[in-house]
Amino acid sequence: MNQQYPSALLQKAIDEFAKLPGVGRKTALRLVLHLLRQDTETVQAFADAVLHLRQEVKYCKVCHNISDSDICEICANPSRDTSRICVVESIRDVMAVEATQQFRGLYHVLGGIISPMDGIGPSDLQIDSLVERVKKGGIDEVILALSTTMEGDTTNFYIYRKLEGLDVKLSVIARGISVGDELEYADEITLGRSILNRTPFDGRL
Amino acid sequence: MNQQYPSALLQKAIDEFAKLPGVGRKTALRLVLHLLRQDTETVQAFADAVLHLRQEVKYCKVCHNISDSDICEICANPSRDTSRICVVESIRDVMAVEATQQFRGLYHVLGGIISPMDGIGPSDLQIDSLVERVKKGGIDEVILALSTTMEGDTTNFYIYRKLEGLDVKLSVIARGISVGDELEYADEITLGRSILNRTPFDGRL
Repeated sequence: MNQQYPSALLQKAIDEFAKLPGVGRKTALRLVLHLLRQDTETVQAFADAVLHLRQEVKYCKVCHNISDSDICEICANPSRDTSRICVVESIRDVMAVEATQQFRGLYHVLGGIISPMDGIGPSDLQIDSLVERVKKGGIDEVILALSTTMEGDTTNFYIYRKLEGLDVKLSVIARGISVGDELEYADEITLGRSILNRTPFDGRL
Repeated sequence: MNQQYPSALLQKAIDEFAKLPGVGRKTALRLVLHLLRQDTETVQAFADAVLHLRQEVKYCKVCHNISDSDICEICANPSRDTSRICVVESIRDVMAVEATQQFRGLYHVLGGIISPMDGIGPSDLQIDSLVERVKKGGIDEVILALSTTMEGDTTNFYIYRKLEGLDVKLSVIARGISVGDELEYADEITLGRSILNRTPFDGRL
């Protein structure tokens, strides 16, 4: 539907929704008409939640994760293992790793990965503050959990060079066949890596 | 990802987005993190657009279409054919019919269709005001452009009974094979209707 909207207010709201990623004009119209059917209070609550988040959100001074206070809940949690840092690209990746319940250490959110194509260099990322954290001591292991892409690999290598010579173990997350995947559909590089990086098997997985 | 979010503000914003139709928690997170990366002004504009729409929107006193003033642009347009009224379920359907550029008359937005399952009866819809418009005179034809569902048919019949005896031609939009469809995939009822309601053919479509 490529037409004039019957109201400038409607037009404006649709324009705003259509700026969101993955939201086209048809979806924007559907969402806006949904909000239009709600109470004013409901719509007010929606607008307030968005605005308050943007205006009041904080980032953890230690790991740069999103937080309601200066130090995030994970960094402030005394039951976490403070000797391990998992380096991730974004807040979303913190949530993804947390959801696995396989990691009890702390995080370090880079805020992106090195990507010359997008004009993102090392100085745009929280790499220096990672080096500072390691230099302060008490860190046994830094686990690099970045995307397994060219950009991720570049960032992994850059961090490796930055931490070289410091007394810390560096590791990357395993690359291999996704759980539940059939071998014949796996790409050659992944399959090759999964054979090179095979793990000892004692009858249990 | 069925986990705690690292920030109550984030949680609240995700909750609000996830209330929108067709938006799950993963999509809500993606949209919220997108907004978080924007300027405060951009987010303010987004929240304002939504709020202003809900607070300031008006509905046309004649046809109940969404409007910025008491009479909508279509009803106020002197070049429209005021002798024909197209009855539709929603504002969206006005936009859909307008997009076809095949109708130059006026509209009447019912605000829904009769649906006992959803507790929507004739008194919840703008049917009385449609009858009033016809009774005032000057209307030659009322075109029923409702969904071709059980509920649409019920509403069509209810309106037919309400307008019975008034000096107005009543018509419904054609039911038939969608343009571009292959006959073998058409359902029997639609195909049957398309044969019964065949139109004279003079070599042109």
